[in-house]
Amino acid sequence: MITLSLIGIGTGNPDHLTRQAMRALNGADLILIPRKGAGKADLAELRRAIVAEVVSNPTTRIAEFDLPTRDAATADYRRRVDDWHEAIATVWTETIDRHLGPAGKVALLVWGDPSLYDSTLRIAARLSPAPQIEVIPGITSIQALTAAHAIPLNEINGPVVITTGRRLRDEGFPPGTDTCVVMLDGECSFQHLPPEGLSIWWAGFAGMPEQITESGPLAEATPRILARRAAARAVQGWIMDIYLLRRQ
Amino acid sequence: MITLSLIGIGTGNPDHLTRQAMRALNGADLILIPRKGAGKADLAELRRAIVAEVVSNPTTRIAEFDLPTRDAATADYRRRVDDWHEAIATVWTETIDRHLGPAGKVALLVWGDPSLYDSTLRIAARLSPAPQIEVIPGITSIQALTAAHAIPLNEINGPVVITTGRRLRDEGFPPGTDTCVVMLDGECSFQHLPPEGLSIWWAGFAGMPEQITESGPLAEATPRILARRAAARAVQGWIMDIYLLRRQ
Repeated sequence: MITLSLIGIGTGNPDHLTRQAMRALNGADLILIPRKGAGKADLAELRRAIVAEVVSNPTTRIAEFDLPTRDAATADYRRRVDDWHEAIATVWTETIDRHLGPAGKVALLVWGDPSLYDSTLRIAARLSPAPQIEVIPGITSIQALTAAHAIPLNEINGPVVITTGRRLRDEGFPPGTDTCVVMLDGECSFQHLPPEGLSIWWAGFAGMPEQITESGPLAEATPRILARRAAARAVQGWIMDIYLLRRQ
Repeated sequence: MITLSLIGIGTGNPDHLTRQAMRALNGADLILIPRKGAGKADLAELRRAIVAEVVSNPTTRIAEFDLPTRDAATADYRRRVDDWHEAIATVWTETIDRHLGPAGKVALLVWGDPSLYDSTLRIAARLSPAPQIEVIPGITSIQALTAAHAIPLNEINGPVVITTGRRLRDEGFPPGTDTCVVMLDGECSFQHLPPEGLSIWWAGFAGMPEQITESGPLAEATPRILARRAAARAVQGWIMDIYLLRRQ
């Protein structure tokens, strides 16, 4: 029987690791590290650094594997994602078979928390035979964002919507809330909102050593964020950003 | 100058502490522990246990103080909360003055994460002179809930609403989403929703050793949750619970 631990590692700062995550990493027989290919955005280097820093168990093996890519020829979005998840599950199975066999503890380091805009749980559900799944919670980029700005996520007893850049672009500011957090936004979708009455708290590389922040009334902050984001992306070669919008 | 560190400690499991939180606790000159009075719900005992377990710095002092209570005679809700926050800020100031003086590092252990349905940041904003505020992110009960059930928070690219029991009761299932997480609900407000098409994932004491979980279609799961919650509350003397509702 395979036990698969999905370990939330936080947002790239090794100090975001919890004691539970460190214990799970050291309890693993095999740690899987995916490689996306060139560029820093695959975070393989960061995963290797975290493993090197916290894993002291000499019997823990590390296996890297190349992550399959999505087939751009598949037109339907859901079908494309399904096929991709299936291909990843197949690579996991092969890698586990080769390095461990039919029984043992396997660990995967998941950026942020395994529950939030992450596919690992869905891919794990495709494995056959089904492993025992264990989830270790991790600090999300939402918490890294609010910590960076030292602001509350919610207004007193108010609701919060977590959404994506695509939805913000297509549907505007979400209904029924004054606070929304936007993730997975490669296109600075906030710049298309009517800015009146909105403020923004933005962070690039939230929680990481490269962290940069901007905030202010949306109309005034937008050009600052666009410039700062473009400059940081040029320097780092990639960027991961997140922001909170609040109706005042 | 006072530096005030608001340290997210997760949901009561000392293994939820991050390395950053442990370092901040050990870097503090003074750790403040609030006491609410009788009952386990003030979590003072848990804060003491965490401090005893992770603080090895012999110069770190611990100061407990009695938390003021809200004045039930003040009819207006916002006014009542404002007055209460002001009273707490005054007690913090007195306690810091008495045990530390005008300069040093003060730490407060915040349940979950300081950004989420927590007043500590708002109370800190009332301090005069204004301290330097530092926020250390912590695991929230939302992550503990999804980890307990090994489920994603969001559907693929879907939005998530975080809301309160009162709002669910007053306004029903929130608009514009198929997933909502409900916190601060002492009254099992899910039982008043039309249950058709809804499923629930519930946890009491999420992330703690006493953790209990129930899930299923809402109509079928509701009586199980009500019974289990009442029994656990009778045994423990208090309960803290959280749940996720999903439209299928």
